[in-house]
Amino acid sequence: MIEVLSLRTSKKLQLIDATSMMDSAVKKIFGAYDGAILCYVPHTTAAITINEAADPDVALDIDSFLRLHLPEGIRFRHLEGNSDAHIISTLIGSSVIVPVERGALRLGRWQGVFFVEADGPRVRNINLVKLTS
Amino acid sequence: MIEVLSLRTSKKLQLIDATSMMDSAVKKIFGAYDGAILCYVPHTTAAITINEAADPDVALDIDSFLRLHLPEGIRFRHLEGNSDAHIISTLIGSSVIVPVERGALRLGRWQGVFFVEADGPRVRNINLVKLTS
Amino acid sequence: MIEVLSLRTSKKLQLIDATSMMDSAVKKIFGAYDGAILCYVPHTTAAITINEAADPDVALDIDSFLRLHLPEGIRFRHLEGNSDAHIISTLIGSSVIVPVERGALRLGRWQGVFFVEADGPRVRNINLVKLTS
Repeated sequence: MIEVLSLRTSKKLQLIDATSMMDSAVKKIFGAYDGAILCYVPHTTAAITINEAADPDVALDIDSFLRLHLPEGIRFRHLEGNSDAHIISTLIGSSVIVPVERGALRLGRWQGVFFVEADGPRVRNINLVKLTS
Repeated sequence: MIEVLSLRTSKKLQLIDATSMMDSAVKKIFGAYDGAILCYVPHTTAAITINEAADPDVALDIDSFLRLHLPEGIRFRHLEGNSDAHIISTLIGSSVIVPVERGALRLGRWQGVFFVEADGPRVRNINLVKLTS
Repeated sequence: MIEVLSLRTSKKLQLIDATSMMDSAVKKIFGAYDGAILCYVPHTTAAITINEAADPDVALDIDSFLRLHLPEGIRFRHLEGNSDAHIISTLIGSSVIVPVERGALRLGRWQGVFFVEADGPRVRNINLVKLTS
């Protein structure tokens, strides 16, 4: 069973902390299992990553780094003009997997799960798949 | 059980759409299970990624971006002269995991699975491992 | 069950071959199962990757590439001054998944699993989660 979480983004490039949304969804939907959760982004101009959730400046610094290496006006073949977003999707990746114990996400102390919007604003999904030990 | 798919690449750097090959292999080999499929590349100068399969220009733009940041003649320590390919392997990654329902890949509407050749042409493998919910 | 492996790093930026440590741990802890092993880094200034283990120059070339694009003194918002390490964590990723047959890691011939320290030296962990087929 694939469970779908939805979120709304507000900028062209933006990291959104989805940790608490995911944590409550996993426990509520899948119950007290052991294993891991696959957090899968079904979009080609977005990504998902794990990084520090305590200081919001970390997410902004990741944005800055991506924009530095992929200036928004960079010219490519793809006629929709959002090749920067497709490249970010491949560089960062379309999924993360987080350990789960008794239905709770077992992230490291400073870690959060961030949805990476690279061609927003849009309504986006994260698809959750339970993986068992 | 690990199942091995083979493909032949034709260029030094090249994204090859492996979606239909993988989709039929998963259904045929593993049957109508629910969970996910691990698509694992056992090579150190190749990678695998998920991105847009509708417009082939997207894959070419990813190539261009990689070549821009990793010019083919870039000098490194490794004497085989293919450090660019090893770096691409680590940046993009050696595996993707795709949700599966009743034996069918559940990719997003515009997504395909691409084998990333970075030191071709060669004969390459993608190793498939079923993961259950 | 999450099993924790510890290792000590000795430099600011460093790839450490953790293959033999992981291989013996998986067999000893989880026994002769089939499926995959999730190797999860619970830190936000480190990463994990798969690449060539035969020639140590490959790991050094990956270091050089990262340092080239992320000079150590690069200025960002995050006041701890280690945004370079957070960015490396997101670019390379917090986990890898390796196929397992009868309790043995099924890496490709030239592959090893490398812990990527980006803000060392420190004592670090790799968390292992068994995933079954």
